[in-house]
Amino acid sequence: MHQTSEEKEEINLLSKSATEFCRKEIADHYATWEKQGNIPRDLWNKLGNQGFLLPEVPEEYGGLGTTFLYSTTIIETFSRLGYNSIAANLSVHDTIIAQYLLNYGTEKQKKHYLPKMATGELIGAIAMTEPAAGSDLQGIKTIAKYDRKQAAYQLNGSKTFITNGQHCDFVVVVAKTNLDVKPSRGITLFIVDVPVAGFERGTNLDKIGLHSCDTSELYFEDVLVTEAAILGEKDQGFKILMSELPRERLIVANNAVASMEGIIEQTVQYVKERELFGTTLASFQNTQFVLAEVATKARVQRSFANECTNLLIKGELDTVTASMAKLSCTEVQGEVMDHCLQLFGGYGYMTEYPIARAYADARVQRIYGGSSEVMKLIIGKNLLL
Amino acid sequence: MHQTSEEKEEINLLSKSATEFCRKEIADHYATWEKQGNIPRDLWNKLGNQGFLLPEVPEEYGGLGTTFLYSTTIIETFSRLGYNSIAANLSVHDTIIAQYLLNYGTEKQKKHYLPKMATGELIGAIAMTEPAAGSDLQGIKTIAKYDRKQAAYQLNGSKTFITNGQHCDFVVVVAKTNLDVKPSRGITLFIVDVPVAGFERGTNLDKIGLHSCDTSELYFEDVLVTEAAILGEKDQGFKILMSELPRERLIVANNAVASMEGIIEQTVQYVKERELFGTTLASFQNTQFVLAEVATKARVQRSFANECTNLLIKGELDTVTASMAKLSCTEVQGEVMDHCLQLFGGYGYMTEYPIARAYADARVQRIYGGSSEVMKLIIGKNLLL
Amino acid sequence: MHQTSEEKEEINLLSKSATEFCRKEIADHYATWEKQGNIPRDLWNKLGNQGFLLPEVPEEYGGLGTTFLYSTTIIETFSRLGYNSIAANLSVHDTIIAQYLLNYGTEKQKKHYLPKMATGELIGAIAMTEPAAGSDLQGIKTIAKYDRKQAAYQLNGSKTFITNGQHCDFVVVVAKTNLDVKPSRGITLFIVDVPVAGFERGTNLDKIGLHSCDTSELYFEDVLVTEAAILGEKDQGFKILMSELPRERLIVANNAVASMEGIIEQTVQYVKERELFGTTLASFQNTQFVLAEVATKARVQRSFANECTNLLIKGELDTVTASMAKLSCTEVQGEVMDHCLQLFGGYGYMTEYPIARAYADARVQRIYGGSSEVMKLIIGKNLLL
Amino acid sequence: MHQTSEEKEEINLLSKSATEFCRKEIADHYATWEKQGNIPRDLWNKLGNQGFLLPEVPEEYGGLGTTFLYSTTIIETFSRLGYNSIAANLSVHDTIIAQYLLNYGTEKQKKHYLPKMATGELIGAIAMTEPAAGSDLQGIKTIAKYDRKQAAYQLNGSKTFITNGQHCDFVVVVAKTNLDVKPSRGITLFIVDVPVAGFERGTNLDKIGLHSCDTSELYFEDVLVTEAAILGEKDQGFKILMSELPRERLIVANNAVASMEGIIEQTVQYVKERELFGTTLASFQNTQFVLAEVATKARVQRSFANECTNLLIKGELDTVTASMAKLSCTEVQGEVMDHCLQLFGGYGYMTEYPIARAYADARVQRIYGGSSEVMKLIIGKNLLL
Ligand SMILES: Cc1cc2nc3c(=O)[nH]c(=O)nc-3n(C[C@H](O)[C@H](O)[C@H](O)COP(=O)(O)OP(=O)(O)OC[C@H]3O[C@@H](n4cnc5c(N)ncnc54)[C@H](O)[C@@H]3O)c2cc1C
Ligand SMILES: Cc1cc2nc3c(=O)[nH]c(=O)nc-3n(C[C@H](O)[C@H](O)[C@H](O)COP(=O)(O)OP(=O)(O)OC[C@H]3O[C@@H](n4cnc5c(N)ncnc54)[C@H](O)[C@@H]3O)c2cc1C
Ligand SMILES: Cc1cc2nc3c(=O)[nH]c(=O)nc-3n(C[C@H](O)[C@H](O)[C@H](O)COP(=O)(O)OP(=O)(O)OC[C@H]3O[C@@H](n4cnc5c(N)ncnc54)[C@H](O)[C@@H]3O)c2cc1C
Ligand SMILES: Cc1cc2nc3c(=O)[nH]c(=O)nc-3n(C[C@H](O)[C@H](O)[C@H](O)COP(=O)(O)OP(=O)(O)OC[C@H]3O[C@@H](n4cnc5c(N)ncnc54)[C@H](O)[C@@H]3O)c2cc1C
Repeated sequence: MHQTSEEKEEINLLSKSATEFCRKEIADHYATWEKQGNIPRDLWNKLGNQGFLLPEVPEEYGGLGTTFLYSTTIIETFSRLGYNSIAANLSVHDTIIAQYLLNYGTEKQKKHYLPKMATGELIGAIAMTEPAAGSDLQGIKTIAKYDRKQAAYQLNGSKTFITNGQHCDFVVVVAKTNLDVKPSRGITLFIVDVPVAGFERGTNLDKIGLHSCDTSELYFEDVLVTEAAILGEKDQGFKILMSELPRERLIVANNAVASMEGIIEQTVQYVKERELFGTTLASFQNTQFVLAEVATKARVQRSFANECTNLLIKGELDTVTASMAKLSCTEVQGEVMDHCLQLFGGYGYMTEYPIARAYADARVQRIYGGSSEVMKLIIGKNLLL
Repeated sequence: MHQTSEEKEEINLLSKSATEFCRKEIADHYATWEKQGNIPRDLWNKLGNQGFLLPEVPEEYGGLGTTFLYSTTIIETFSRLGYNSIAANLSVHDTIIAQYLLNYGTEKQKKHYLPKMATGELIGAIAMTEPAAGSDLQGIKTIAKYDRKQAAYQLNGSKTFITNGQHCDFVVVVAKTNLDVKPSRGITLFIVDVPVAGFERGTNLDKIGLHSCDTSELYFEDVLVTEAAILGEKDQGFKILMSELPRERLIVANNAVASMEGIIEQTVQYVKERELFGTTLASFQNTQFVLAEVATKARVQRSFANECTNLLIKGELDTVTASMAKLSCTEVQGEVMDHCLQLFGGYGYMTEYPIARAYADARVQRIYGGSSEVMKLIIGKNLLL
Repeated sequence: MHQTSEEKEEINLLSKSATEFCRKEIADHYATWEKQGNIPRDLWNKLGNQGFLLPEVPEEYGGLGTTFLYSTTIIETFSRLGYNSIAANLSVHDTIIAQYLLNYGTEKQKKHYLPKMATGELIGAIAMTEPAAGSDLQGIKTIAKYDRKQAAYQLNGSKTFITNGQHCDFVVVVAKTNLDVKPSRGITLFIVDVPVAGFERGTNLDKIGLHSCDTSELYFEDVLVTEAAILGEKDQGFKILMSELPRERLIVANNAVASMEGIIEQTVQYVKERELFGTTLASFQNTQFVLAEVATKARVQRSFANECTNLLIKGELDTVTASMAKLSCTEVQGEVMDHCLQLFGGYGYMTEYPIARAYADARVQRIYGGSSEVMKLIIGKNLLL
Repeated sequence: MHQTSEEKEEINLLSKSATEFCRKEIADHYATWEKQGNIPRDLWNKLGNQGFLLPEVPEEYGGLGTTFLYSTTIIETFSRLGYNSIAANLSVHDTIIAQYLLNYGTEKQKKHYLPKMATGELIGAIAMTEPAAGSDLQGIKTIAKYDRKQAAYQLNGSKTFITNGQHCDFVVVVAKTNLDVKPSRGITLFIVDVPVAGFERGTNLDKIGLHSCDTSELYFEDVLVTEAAILGEKDQGFKILMSELPRERLIVANNAVASMEGIIEQTVQYVKERELFGTTLASFQNTQFVLAEVATKARVQRSFANECTNLLIKGELDTVTASMAKLSCTEVQGEVMDHCLQLFGGYGYMTEYPIARAYADARVQRIYGGSSEVMKLIIGKNLLL
């Protein structure tokens, strides 16, 4: 990161205040939330109160007008401290949806949604994936058909794996509006305020990890949405989604790095304290070598993540480089978690130990936000053009 | 496996009847049991009714007098079908504890425990690990001190991570009985019938996986045990534990292989059915190559596991070779599960999908029953003698 | 291996006599041969004298009428002792070409070639690969066109990477004889005695390893071959090649395992002797763990290689299983060599150290005889049928 | 790299002129040099003429007074183009020895050696390693004993694996001068002009790769060296060696990255051109995925190498971070070379193909300049302090 020393100081303070927030508001409750599969609704408001939501959005829309460095610092703090569910919730709300609105919303939409998203009054979700279409986004079946009589679109389809699916107050729904063209030119984004007639939430899905990050199926049956609910231009949804990919992938990458850093620190602590065979776990060469390897891997990924963060801030992060960041940081995250867990022995398998959660949480990072295979498709195609 | 064709036929039938049992008695309930963190008590009795418990024990003690091939076939069936929690429960009860009793118990102990273990009337647990001593078994602090007046040992200490900890009717407790000698010569095994005064079960521990395999802390405070409760000779417990290691490690290895085989089959099925980008997931070369790799790995491990099983049956499986089996099969299991999960995309992360469970369940295999590092210590020492 | 104890004894003796041969005839010269890029012509005769060539061929054709266990034992001995170039030379001559002749040759061909191949009087080569066609064998451009006037085929084309290319006295050339059908039905094998008009050997190619295993381009310009030179039926060459694949792949796999076993033994020796930091290299836990891992991997591969050898002898080794053996054993060989070399430090990089050669030799095993990718294609296709 | 645009331009030009030099002076001869195991003596002078030697040294000592960015750019160009032997030769002469002299030499030493090193008139070598002491530098046995009568030190010992061992005109010899203290306080560096009485060069060692980078044993028998030949202070040699480690390790890391980048480019080219199965090698998904993975790995390592280069230039690169760079970049180099070679099929194993050389050259990078294990020791110790 090439920051002035004031910037560094500011970021440092931000990170400290986020850490402090976690200690006060999250630490004692997280295990409970993980068990119940959700964070409490009012945590969003508390996050808003602290200015932790939408810092990048200009002040006129309720934000702080900061750079991406602020949002990523806040979200990375949650990851570093092991609150990956919250980091995931925020990533969607903050770095993804808020940016769609900011960059493609009408003035009216921005004025309505952004300030309330910043306070936590409104929680957003983005619904692309369907039971039969994930990586192949263009294969979605959700359709919005314009109905003259009702002067509205009729939305039909079902979405799945939607983060914030239980809590969300509005959903950005990706739907087909023109079946006669290539999907990439016939897809539109709709902002659907929920609950609304014809909308239903499925159950909160049970996952390997990210237990308190709610993930749900969402059903739309003849839901009516007016033209005013279109985000960006009609039929241009695919382009919009593509344009924000670098940022979405970078935030996943950054979270991966922060999570590794946090866990490595804890593992170092643990091996120093754990006694066995008349010595400490830290004294075994295997422990030292494994930790040296994972610390090196994390450090190298940090370097690249920082370079990409700088590029993003300068507006120069392209999709291929961002895909490399996501691919690399999340794959390494998987390896690092696995090694660290092993050092904890049986404790590493017990959910009450943060490493157990971090391990389980990490597994999805190679899947959502574009799977590792999709990243390779993008990178490979670019190389072999 | 070098069996006669009748043997093969018999094993085949056994495997089919175990599969049938799973379909009838387990399939519809497993998700519920996983949620509640335990299998129902009466499943043990049903297993007993089917002759699935202790088949190796001679008929006079309630078993069927079969070889290890029977027990492993039954337990592997549970693993193959994704009921790893049950496989883990059984492994402890059946292949570990029953063998201690059979090989080291007094006639009276055998007559009392084995038949009831075979019917499922009594469930056993083995308690070695303590909060401060896992790999370093000799570092345990649980003590059994002989008290002349009460003509009994007073047992004090706490154990952790004990499989069947919630359900067990008796616990084989590893305790120090002589502090003046090297621990390996001052450790004794006690069969403690529970509940009993001074004994308490901790809560059922929350784990990354193996959710319906109960794992608990057990507390012993001045629990009285008479000499008749000693399993094997006094102060000879360590030797007994060591003598059964090959079998304990092989059963973990065999389960690892069966679990891989089951999951690979399901993944092959899934990729053929999953449609995306106008084709099937099976049609991508990456899918084909990944599956070719994992299938090859599983096949190779199977070869070694079978060789070891044969050796065990012939009484020729040494600790080093068994340690290689555990190390190799469980490490490969970890890799295979990870690759297969990835092919399921987001579904792979949802607990309702067997791959998600198999992945989470697999992680502990490299830890319990002697961690991978402990296996390497044993193998390395042997190489470098 | 499920052998009677006499068989075991016999194989043991064979292995000892091959070892003895190496000590006497090879050990002192191998470095020189490696430098000059070839073994001396008369080594072949010495090998023949010992009965080390074509043991499997029936006595009537000059062999010993043994099973595959004999050939593989001999060739594995060379690999185990680090003479991989010789193992490679023999594998082609012995396990590949002799089998083609035995299984598909006319009585006349068998009577002519096999006895001389067994004594080392004639050395064979098999020429499939061309500069523009390796994995894609059906894409070869070498053509044999029947010329009525000369009552012979005119052979044109160039082959490359041909083992025994400098020494060979005859070459089994794979050529197209019918361009109007699918290549798999228009390919014929010709036995070409060389030198002959129109035939030329390219230079002995410089390789990363296998330095004394000669590898060459071979050029055929209007070389005349009569019908009597056809091996098997006309246009049936592809089928013949396919039918011998399991054996060809298994011998590569077996060599891989033997090479690992030999090198691990040497590495164990080395680390015990190498002193540093006031102790031995063997005393470091990293050394112990690395050796434990590689020894385990080699042991597991051995198990599978043995199972496949048994299957082959029983006539039950299918192409898919053999492909798994080649894929798995050679991939693991690569890993094992890399780890062992590292333990030798700078010495590991010096050609005079056997580990350096074994490392360099190992790299080609994943490429020739069907590359790892081709193995995955075969295995994957079979899985996903 | 955070350079001004002029700097970038300059570095770009430098890289181009180094590339041009390679095309003119090296490309046509390199294969011959590799065969003969050495580069011609006058290549050093040509390099000097171009200003490619010692650019960092101030102008008063014959250099250009540039930053490290210049030397690394030049050396990386050789690596990128596949001339790793030359890169290795230069790394020692330029980035290691010149810096010792510059930072610790007397004015007289600097005036004498540096200008001639810059023109290529004098070639330097650094002799630390001995047959019985590599990683354990403090275990060296070479001794320099002061002899009053001759008013000189008598140097005795033998060194091995010394780069530039055949060509060198002077050797910086690491020797013990005080056996009564901890080695780290009793080691001295001597500049020994060779040939000199009692000095002998061993043969040029045969290696897996880096064929034209001469590596030799050097023998010192009663070689006389005066006090004026001491580099730095007496008994302070260890400290001096340590102080330059970050730079030495970074140059290895940077070369690793450049080599990967060069090879990936060539592999991309190759797979696009190689035709098989009626298509190109580039069209297979495995090819695309493998290349995506290696390109990502190289890109990430580049990021970290650049960060470290910046730190070095700012004087802020510590030993631990530099060790991470060496560990990480060379380990990844190994993986990348292996994958790229595989894509070349049989050609990848032929020395005439640059990938074959790059693969063989890469193997030593994890060994010299501090092995990967030594890097882990350093990093691990630092973590677990
Ligand atoms: C916890 C969680 C939260 C999520 N949150 C959201 C959300 O908020 N909003 C939303 O819209 N979605 C969300 N998703 C969905 C996620 O984006 C998808 O799961 C992901 O894109 C993969 O799609 P899929 O699950 O349909 O897998 P599939 O697309 O079916 O992929 C299956 C496998 O095939 C591979 N594959 C795909 N294409 C190719 C190819 N061409 N070649 C080779 N291999 C290929 C994939 O990498 C994967 O390994 C979430 C998912 C999870 C698990
Ligand atoms: C689900 C589950 C079920 C279990 N069931 C039972 C049961 O029924 N009965 C029972 O008694 N126990 C049981 N255990 C306990 C299990 O056997 C221990 O967890 C295991 O032996 C490891 O011990 P530990 O957890 O204390 O880890 P530690 O011993 O503290 O090990 C920590 C780490 O150090 C490594 N290590 C250990 N020694 C060395 C060394 N010398 N050099 C280098 N590294 C080393 C370990 O491999 C591990 O990575 C169970 C555990 C789990 C998780
Ligand atoms: C030392 C040595 C000895 C040899 N001896 C002989 C011999 O005696 N006789 C003989 O005939 N040949 C011999 N060969 C040739 C050897 O069999 C070929 O090199 C091998 O079959 C690979 O062919 P290729 O080199 O043309 O690579 P290619 O076929 O061009 O393959 C290039 C790369 O593409 C991969 N690939 C191929 N097809 C696919 C696909 N469909 N999808 C994805 N990836 C794919 C390959 O695995 C490889 O990584 C020898 C080779 C060597 C190096
Ligand atoms: C091509 C080449 C060029 C070279 N150039 C020079 C040169 O110009 N000048 C010079 O002085 N030297 C040079 N070297 C020597 C090089 O620096 C040494 O080879 C290297 O430091 C390793 O030392 P070693 O070979 O003695 O291996 P050893 O020190 O014997 O190491 C053997 C193995 O043990 C491992 N090991 C070491 N210590 C530990 C530990 N505490 N715990 C666990 N594992 C450990 C090592 O990593 C290695 O894997 C060169 C070497 C090569 C191959």
